[in-house]
Amino acid sequence: MNSPDEIVLDDEQQQARSWFEALRNRICAAFEEIEREAGSDATFVYTPWRRDGGGGGVRGLIKGRIFEKAGVNVSTVGGQFAPEFARTIHGAADDPTFFATGISLVAHMANPHVPAVHMNCRFLATTKRWFGGGADLNPPLPYQQDTDEFHDALRKACAAHPGAGDYPRYSKWAEDYFYIPHRKVHRGVGGIFFDHLEGDFVTNFAFVRDVGEAFLDVFPRLVRRRMGAAWTDEDRAAMLAYRGRYAEFNLVYDRGTLFGLKTGGDVDAILMSLPPLATWA
Amino acid sequence: MNSPDEIVLDDEQQQARSWFEALRNRICAAFEEIEREAGSDATFVYTPWRRDGGGGGVRGLIKGRIFEKAGVNVSTVGGQFAPEFARTIHGAADDPTFFATGISLVAHMANPHVPAVHMNCRFLATTKRWFGGGADLNPPLPYQQDTDEFHDALRKACAAHPGAGDYPRYSKWAEDYFYIPHRKVHRGVGGIFFDHLEGDFVTNFAFVRDVGEAFLDVFPRLVRRRMGAAWTDEDRAAMLAYRGRYAEFNLVYDRGTLFGLKTGGDVDAILMSLPPLATWA
Repeated sequence: MNSPDEIVLDDEQQQARSWFEALRNRICAAFEEIEREAGSDATFVYTPWRRDGGGGGVRGLIKGRIFEKAGVNVSTVGGQFAPEFARTIHGAADDPTFFATGISLVAHMANPHVPAVHMNCRFLATTKRWFGGGADLNPPLPYQQDTDEFHDALRKACAAHPGAGDYPRYSKWAEDYFYIPHRKVHRGVGGIFFDHLEGDFVTNFAFVRDVGEAFLDVFPRLVRRRMGAAWTDEDRAAMLAYRGRYAEFNLVYDRGTLFGLKTGGDVDAILMSLPPLATWA
Repeated sequence: MNSPDEIVLDDEQQQARSWFEALRNRICAAFEEIEREAGSDATFVYTPWRRDGGGGGVRGLIKGRIFEKAGVNVSTVGGQFAPEFARTIHGAADDPTFFATGISLVAHMANPHVPAVHMNCRFLATTKRWFGGGADLNPPLPYQQDTDEFHDALRKACAAHPGAGDYPRYSKWAEDYFYIPHRKVHRGVGGIFFDHLEGDFVTNFAFVRDVGEAFLDVFPRLVRRRMGAAWTDEDRAAMLAYRGRYAEFNLVYDRGTLFGLKTGGDVDAILMSLPPLATWA
């Protein structure tokens, strides 16, 4: 669905891109399967976009009975950073040439008992080459069991790749990153965040793949656990207020949002992370 | 309601502050009167807040039948800017001492035919002293008649004060300022924006007062014109999407929001501008 044929990918870039797109397909199939179980025929709608300057992506969006709004984007872009922006990016200060491929997912759920979630994996190349990524759970009504399982899944993915995964560091990084300073609250119950994972491509890529696999394993399980739970108007109101905080984080602080807007990404893809409905009391 | 007794105001600062607070009282009374006409007994609820470092303010909030959510804040603060922030503020590069007093208002309306609105007037003192302010109209469903009347009112306020008001310049400034680059759309139908209005205090203050008077005259008239109009689900949906754009502007670009967050203002007062309910499709 995505053929950024005007940028030439080397072998590592191609491997990363192919895997991210395959993961997208599997995640979208898993989400659609959950919709089927809930008696809904909602499916992802895919919209390709091209980037001026090189590459493009495909945004995928489902609006279902369980997934009130979930966006799964893949993009593969390359070219030259704007000079001022280049100075802020690892390895691009003296040469603004860059390549980036990644998958980014945000799911806002209809049922306040089901956690919202974010997951992202990316491979960047400037004069340096690195992976980055993360996943964090955003339950409007947190359950310790769900939080623990989510963290456990990511801990195991890290533990399986001692040369790349570092759960204590990455979970602390998520705690620091997914924080709303002006509210003095975290945006969710954490997960992992990592960036500038340089070094051996094979080792690092294997870790990143396991992060994707861990997400694909754990999140649908959490959804199925809670999607049948009854909720009250108060629960729904709490969810909408929670989503207001989520929108604040993404618009004021999120680096991925900034990266997308600064590199001429597709605004509908970048802002697909925003909630379908949110309140500010 | 606001006694920032730990900062000492000189005569000009005191005059500005008193007038802003009086304007707040008159605006809130006008809005409550409109609620009465609509058979609602909604009133503003006032919450004072103190700023660590000097001063404070009062946020006023009404949730009514016509005014779905309107916030009117007054604040009078002073102290020292953080060093890095000081460098970005007129006249504060070498001395971070500052004083600021102002009124800020945002009204989100229940009826999509009634325009939302923003108005702000402020008096700042660093090593320089200046007024700033503006007002812009944000109709989810624009009517040329309303837009023209709003602009006319501000044009007249400018014309009455040739030494301070400059409608062509200030309306262009609003056009440039109230713009959402990533969407390539304006956030509303414009108005005026001005800043760093230095020079003769008496002349400038008289102009700023007339901006406030113009707002108080024209906006309630526009509200009364449309508040009885019937609307459809589509109209309401268009309004909620429009509010999403409004939230994006305020969180990503708005200077006043940034100023508040960077100077330790009250987060609930600063973010009172955010819509009560918004959608992102």
